[in-house]
Amino acid sequence: MTESSSKLWGGRFSEKTDLLLEKINSSLQYDKRMCQEDLQGSEAYARALQRANLLTKEEMEAIHKGLAQISKEWEKNTFKVKPMDEDIHTANERRLKELIGLPATKLHTGRSRNDQSNTDLRLWLRSRIGNLDKYLRQLVKEMVRRSTEEKDILMPGYTHLQRAQPVRWSHWLLSYAWSFKIDVDRLAQLYDRINVMTLGSGAIAGNPFPIDRQLLAKDLNFTDLSPNSMYAVGDRDFVAEFLFWASLTAVHLSRLAEDLILFSSQEFGFVKLADSFTTGSSLMPQKRNPDGLEILRGKAGRIFGHCTGFMMVLKGLPSTYNKDLQEDKEATFDTYDTMEDVLQLTEGLLSSLKVDKVRCTSALSPDMLATDIAYYLVRKGIPFREAHHLAGKVVAEAEKKNMSIMDLPLEELKTISATFEDDSKDIWHYENSVEQYQSTGGTSLSSIEQQTIELNKWLLIRTIN
Amino acid sequence: MTESSSKLWGGRFSEKTDLLLEKINSSLQYDKRMCQEDLQGSEAYARALQRANLLTKEEMEAIHKGLAQISKEWEKNTFKVKPMDEDIHTANERRLKELIGLPATKLHTGRSRNDQSNTDLRLWLRSRIGNLDKYLRQLVKEMVRRSTEEKDILMPGYTHLQRAQPVRWSHWLLSYAWSFKIDVDRLAQLYDRINVMTLGSGAIAGNPFPIDRQLLAKDLNFTDLSPNSMYAVGDRDFVAEFLFWASLTAVHLSRLAEDLILFSSQEFGFVKLADSFTTGSSLMPQKRNPDGLEILRGKAGRIFGHCTGFMMVLKGLPSTYNKDLQEDKEATFDTYDTMEDVLQLTEGLLSSLKVDKVRCTSALSPDMLATDIAYYLVRKGIPFREAHHLAGKVVAEAEKKNMSIMDLPLEELKTISATFEDDSKDIWHYENSVEQYQSTGGTSLSSIEQQTIELNKWLLIRTIN
Amino acid sequence: MTESSSKLWGGRFSEKTDLLLEKINSSLQYDKRMCQEDLQGSEAYARALQRANLLTKEEMEAIHKGLAQISKEWEKNTFKVKPMDEDIHTANERRLKELIGLPATKLHTGRSRNDQSNTDLRLWLRSRIGNLDKYLRQLVKEMVRRSTEEKDILMPGYTHLQRAQPVRWSHWLLSYAWSFKIDVDRLAQLYDRINVMTLGSGAIAGNPFPIDRQLLAKDLNFTDLSPNSMYAVGDRDFVAEFLFWASLTAVHLSRLAEDLILFSSQEFGFVKLADSFTTGSSLMPQKRNPDGLEILRGKAGRIFGHCTGFMMVLKGLPSTYNKDLQEDKEATFDTYDTMEDVLQLTEGLLSSLKVDKVRCTSALSPDMLATDIAYYLVRKGIPFREAHHLAGKVVAEAEKKNMSIMDLPLEELKTISATFEDDSKDIWHYENSVEQYQSTGGTSLSSIEQQTIELNKWLLIRTIN
Amino acid sequence: MTESSSKLWGGRFSEKTDLLLEKINSSLQYDKRMCQEDLQGSEAYARALQRANLLTKEEMEAIHKGLAQISKEWEKNTFKVKPMDEDIHTANERRLKELIGLPATKLHTGRSRNDQSNTDLRLWLRSRIGNLDKYLRQLVKEMVRRSTEEKDILMPGYTHLQRAQPVRWSHWLLSYAWSFKIDVDRLAQLYDRINVMTLGSGAIAGNPFPIDRQLLAKDLNFTDLSPNSMYAVGDRDFVAEFLFWASLTAVHLSRLAEDLILFSSQEFGFVKLADSFTTGSSLMPQKRNPDGLEILRGKAGRIFGHCTGFMMVLKGLPSTYNKDLQEDKEATFDTYDTMEDVLQLTEGLLSSLKVDKVRCTSALSPDMLATDIAYYLVRKGIPFREAHHLAGKVVAEAEKKNMSIMDLPLEELKTISATFEDDSKDIWHYENSVEQYQSTGGTSLSSIEQQTIELNKWLLIRTIN
Repeated sequence: MTESSSKLWGGRFSEKTDLLLEKINSSLQYDKRMCQEDLQGSEAYARALQRANLLTKEEMEAIHKGLAQISKEWEKNTFKVKPMDEDIHTANERRLKELIGLPATKLHTGRSRNDQSNTDLRLWLRSRIGNLDKYLRQLVKEMVRRSTEEKDILMPGYTHLQRAQPVRWSHWLLSYAWSFKIDVDRLAQLYDRINVMTLGSGAIAGNPFPIDRQLLAKDLNFTDLSPNSMYAVGDRDFVAEFLFWASLTAVHLSRLAEDLILFSSQEFGFVKLADSFTTGSSLMPQKRNPDGLEILRGKAGRIFGHCTGFMMVLKGLPSTYNKDLQEDKEATFDTYDTMEDVLQLTEGLLSSLKVDKVRCTSALSPDMLATDIAYYLVRKGIPFREAHHLAGKVVAEAEKKNMSIMDLPLEELKTISATFEDDSKDIWHYENSVEQYQSTGGTSLSSIEQQTIELNKWLLIRTIN
Repeated sequence: MTESSSKLWGGRFSEKTDLLLEKINSSLQYDKRMCQEDLQGSEAYARALQRANLLTKEEMEAIHKGLAQISKEWEKNTFKVKPMDEDIHTANERRLKELIGLPATKLHTGRSRNDQSNTDLRLWLRSRIGNLDKYLRQLVKEMVRRSTEEKDILMPGYTHLQRAQPVRWSHWLLSYAWSFKIDVDRLAQLYDRINVMTLGSGAIAGNPFPIDRQLLAKDLNFTDLSPNSMYAVGDRDFVAEFLFWASLTAVHLSRLAEDLILFSSQEFGFVKLADSFTTGSSLMPQKRNPDGLEILRGKAGRIFGHCTGFMMVLKGLPSTYNKDLQEDKEATFDTYDTMEDVLQLTEGLLSSLKVDKVRCTSALSPDMLATDIAYYLVRKGIPFREAHHLAGKVVAEAEKKNMSIMDLPLEELKTISATFEDDSKDIWHYENSVEQYQSTGGTSLSSIEQQTIELNKWLLIRTIN
Repeated sequence: MTESSSKLWGGRFSEKTDLLLEKINSSLQYDKRMCQEDLQGSEAYARALQRANLLTKEEMEAIHKGLAQISKEWEKNTFKVKPMDEDIHTANERRLKELIGLPATKLHTGRSRNDQSNTDLRLWLRSRIGNLDKYLRQLVKEMVRRSTEEKDILMPGYTHLQRAQPVRWSHWLLSYAWSFKIDVDRLAQLYDRINVMTLGSGAIAGNPFPIDRQLLAKDLNFTDLSPNSMYAVGDRDFVAEFLFWASLTAVHLSRLAEDLILFSSQEFGFVKLADSFTTGSSLMPQKRNPDGLEILRGKAGRIFGHCTGFMMVLKGLPSTYNKDLQEDKEATFDTYDTMEDVLQLTEGLLSSLKVDKVRCTSALSPDMLATDIAYYLVRKGIPFREAHHLAGKVVAEAEKKNMSIMDLPLEELKTISATFEDDSKDIWHYENSVEQYQSTGGTSLSSIEQQTIELNKWLLIRTIN
Repeated sequence: MTESSSKLWGGRFSEKTDLLLEKINSSLQYDKRMCQEDLQGSEAYARALQRANLLTKEEMEAIHKGLAQISKEWEKNTFKVKPMDEDIHTANERRLKELIGLPATKLHTGRSRNDQSNTDLRLWLRSRIGNLDKYLRQLVKEMVRRSTEEKDILMPGYTHLQRAQPVRWSHWLLSYAWSFKIDVDRLAQLYDRINVMTLGSGAIAGNPFPIDRQLLAKDLNFTDLSPNSMYAVGDRDFVAEFLFWASLTAVHLSRLAEDLILFSSQEFGFVKLADSFTTGSSLMPQKRNPDGLEILRGKAGRIFGHCTGFMMVLKGLPSTYNKDLQEDKEATFDTYDTMEDVLQLTEGLLSSLKVDKVRCTSALSPDMLATDIAYYLVRKGIPFREAHHLAGKVVAEAEKKNMSIMDLPLEELKTISATFEDDSKDIWHYENSVEQYQSTGGTSLSSIEQQTIELNKWLLIRTIN
């Protein structure tokens, strides 16, 4: 390449790429979602500046009036973005100056976008956590409701996807209710770590003016202050934690979805999804596809993808603020939006599906009571390992005779163990089987009731907000 | 819950959530990016149907005319989306029927959205690979250009981020050029796996009409046919591979970015980024931040996040099509867009930065020649391990005397080893040091030249398209 | 803490932690798996040194004899590790010196552990790729064998885990065979990138002696040379690529496992796993758990975990060698071992399971032929969308009458469409349904045969070694 | 393949693979790490069985004696593993029967390996959390100690790896201390979720005997009971959470390592690592490589790899126990071991490195005070945006004159703004700059002291155990 062509090209390119950096660098397109939080932070910061005598009362009031006006513009979708608005902070401050002039130029005193954007994201996320809490609680509530109403339905319990022991349908439902309950508990703890004010950390060294951060935090309803400015501007742990929290919750949803995809297959047939939650096929007229459930299952991948991506962004970064951290927002927003959608979708799916008692019951088979034979013998005093061995013999004998174990006559049983008595026929009632499990957390009626009582009690206690 | 309250709530909810599933299920918002590819596939499929006598010539022509019209509408942004358009396939077919009536209803004969959407995504990605190839080659070209022009500049080579041995700046530049060259080689192999036609697989069982898939593939410029319909409709390996390809390439960019962030720090000072590729601080007037480089580094996380997310989606899915696979598109599109941006950004950064020869040279220090002392002795016949030991003694002696090793008089050296002679003073020329490395891949001038010759030769051979 | 206690503690601690760094830093415990490759590299390097006159013939022979002795010691497990052996390179060189004295101290001339360990790992992995190739081909072979023998068995094909259309069991089998075939194709391409010699790159700047790297590569059967020493010592792309290759292959295995877990459940019952590939329950005597399949499914996570971990290690590293790269080996070894196990396990599972033709056939239901009604009408000239609509009406009519669609009398069909004729009864043969799919990749007999022919042809061509 | 060769091969293979499944399935090799926890659980379970009259006092005592004996055997490494011991539960029970005969066969009554292994892992992890807590606290303690002793050292604070503002070395140290403090807080919350007893859940349906789970939990020092048996046996959230907790903590360590790798480079030179924490080069006698730090940085990848792998294992699993969950143990053990190592390594590195006050101070440059010029003007009443603009002018003027901003005479400053007065010379004291940041979390002395007071207070409160 000759020098001149290099220059010509370089000249053109440099300009073009300049625009490219501008495009890649600019975050307004997505961080404008925090427009109100940015204004909220500025409003409180203006009060803090006034208390520190860096603003007069009049200046502060002018700023507040201007911010209120901008807030309305965003609300009404009349805010005009300008080319130089590289982020929401710049856009709002630029607009404020247009509206009120001089006092606007004092608002950034002692503040940096490093502490400002961190604060905005915390405010944004904090205000959305309540929704996730609400949707999860609705899910628990719906599961408790169904498990109360449908507690008489028995179905096979599976381990390794092989029929294991009879359980109550409600016990299955509640197994997920507990999972979501604990997701909420985790969310409440995370909430406290989001709810920490980093404003007042400046670019890196802190705030050099007599800003009372305690008062400022109180003003913004933060319960805690970041204790070290270098730490604060480079810290995105609350984002990483949120992404992981959502991932784990989404994994729970993916397992629920997997169960329901199985249960709604023709082979299982335990549940029938509402028409409004299935879709048809453009080719096969008979199809009823559980698209909603499959989407649920798939989103676990998407969300954990965000978590992985962001953890990889953080790894090995030098301390304090580096531009790489800008990846925090899109990951947070998409994760939140996805969670909001899938939690509501789950509730819709769960509240509208029908459980097919007949199919559930007819899937129970006497071989699932093999353990109960062993338990029967244990109750008669046979050591468990021997009882297990004898139950195995019963299963083998029935297989040999090509009949169901429940049809083996007592005499046959007696040849396997003299311990079998007339009451052994009680083994063959599935209801008896599930009612054995009276100890805490078992699948008996009393345990189901105990679980719903505890969950209902928990539902009354708000842990967030 | 009483029946009526259930109805009231259920009624409202069911409707609402119905809309929610619709919203989550709908993919038009993003899959409309494949609008032209969808039309392209349909155009060829119409020809295949005509060849199989499932369309008359007139019907085919009507379809082609209609598709051309729709293509223009998308181009001119006048296509009107309707609420029932759940994906790009539905939207285009719906519009076709509006435009041409009856023949439109024959277009989907034997086709399913399962094979159609897979084909569309392959067409879309195939047509973009060329851009990534181009940008990577431009990057290699620019690096070759600079390394030719600036081959006289020496700088410290680092291992463990500690100064190790003097190297040529060009050698460093070319180390990345090779990396990108191999990324292109990988991309070319991936291209062949994208370039496989899945159309004609139907929903799962294949196409039941006498469609000649060979001819159809030729028509669409596909070089290969999917060999099994069940495999074809459930296969997204080309997506997973693309996401990983992009991740590995992005990891290379992240390492380049890390080097340049270090080199442009005040402490290293080896390069100065162009003003147009740095940004200032709203708080600190003296700052010139390498935002572009930090974004490069961060995007490696974002992209690998997509790869992880999608691999997790795929894991444990039953075979053939499941709705979870719909996660393929957003991941592909965002990864492509990000790669397109960062590759151009990298070229801009690289072509506009200035290397500071003085800072590079002054960072070389005599202790970096300790290995050369050992090599000097080896050339005089001392076994390497002893030579290494003696060089260590020289370093220690200089430290003891608190002087640079290059200032130790010959007599001192001779007390350490009688092998030192007058020519030992040649060790202290950094140019001599780098010129030792004449064997292939070393940092000598001749090796640099050899590398640029090979890369230039490679640049002439187009492997994609 | 008082100063003295600090000193006391510091003193003790420093020593202790010294040992800790030593422990963490030491890699011998795992890199001794490359003991033979390390010797192999040294043997060839000795020849290269001799050609460059840095060793005499006698010295070279002494070295070779010593290396052969060490090789035997490793083989016979009599090699005595000493505390100062921090890695396999150190251990082997230390032992060589014990055995042959002086010439041993010349072996490292111009070499660094940076290029040596990279070369060793390439040699190691290169020699194992052939096994993975072999196991995958055995898998394909077994699937081709079964699909040939069992091509008459029909079963439901599923999309969204809902019964879609009848397919051949062999078509399902082959869908995975193709997947593994392409995994082998990918592996062959990866092999070429592993098979590149990095020896001769030194620590960073290259090799300063007249080592003929071309000859050295030929000696070690490498087909290519690394072109840039800085690139070579910091490059672990072949590791990242291998980990991803294994992850994608493992994801295929996880999907196969998922299908088979479903198929071997009581609800599906399509296959029965061999007793030797199931395990029992310590509690429930009737259980036959598909542990092998579940392990297959789970390992996809484990392996991709290695891929993620290593990509995260690479991200943002400065160029050339950094100690972080030491994470390459354990990830590679465990991934290889796991793949070796699971591929053999899959073959065992697949070759020993029994398919239950009766259960497969009885799972077919007439509603799966709804598409065929539409195809019947299309063949009689009805446009597809109308045909699809009419087929839907047939389904609805049968549902209304609470009968199977195949039992609807011709007169009823005629009221839906006059196009129905006497030959419509042929629709209800599942065999007719699958035989429609004659075009390439369909589920008809001829397509199955075509697929097995192509796969058998491919099995004859060795692409690796 | 001919039939006979197939049979011959099949025969051989089936046997071989049988062994393969056994090998892959067996977990004793790693789960024997929980040998004592397994015994501990059995000891308490025997008491529970006795209370439920399923064991006599004598039987219980015999069991306890046997368990104590086995415990000693593991301790003394004399426990003899037998081929049929597929896991630690089997091994211990088998041995117990050898030692005490009949009563051993009653121990498993109502228990399943599903609840047993979950309990064992919880016991194991619970007992190790205290170590992680201890090491993290020692780290905080050491940082607090150093930050107190070395609080007078000033250094450049960096954002975007560009010099930003002067900060105290102690402020940097404490920024990580806070990070580790919060890691401990998170660990304490996680501890509560580990500390939940799942024993008594059986295989899936619960425990059918009158086992008092409350008492059993108390006996084992668990603070909570799992509320639903189906949930309990399939739940591994405590593992996923632990892996993520370790990942986030490791990411903090990776950032600390990155800072220290930079600081210990020749270019920065702020710290000197102790000789005992660096390693030399086999080739370059002058090298002092920060291997320990690089390992720290790399391990973040390894650990998050475990987290990703396990999340992917969990995704889409059906509920309750599936064998895939067996991946929990190796991930947990390796993560714990790695954390234990790296936390101690970090303490060793941190307590033994020397900070170079002279290099730190001499890296401060007057341009880092540009913000202070603006602050000076703000304090004189100039609005911040104007002040920032004027400070920019000062910087530009100095550049134009090719002098340091601190050398610009007052008259020059006055031409830029009449507000500059004689006291402007106080700007140029770095000490004045850092002392501005008096508000909470700033870099002033008082803030450092406040931080150390709070951390010391926190160090006194044990949150775990």
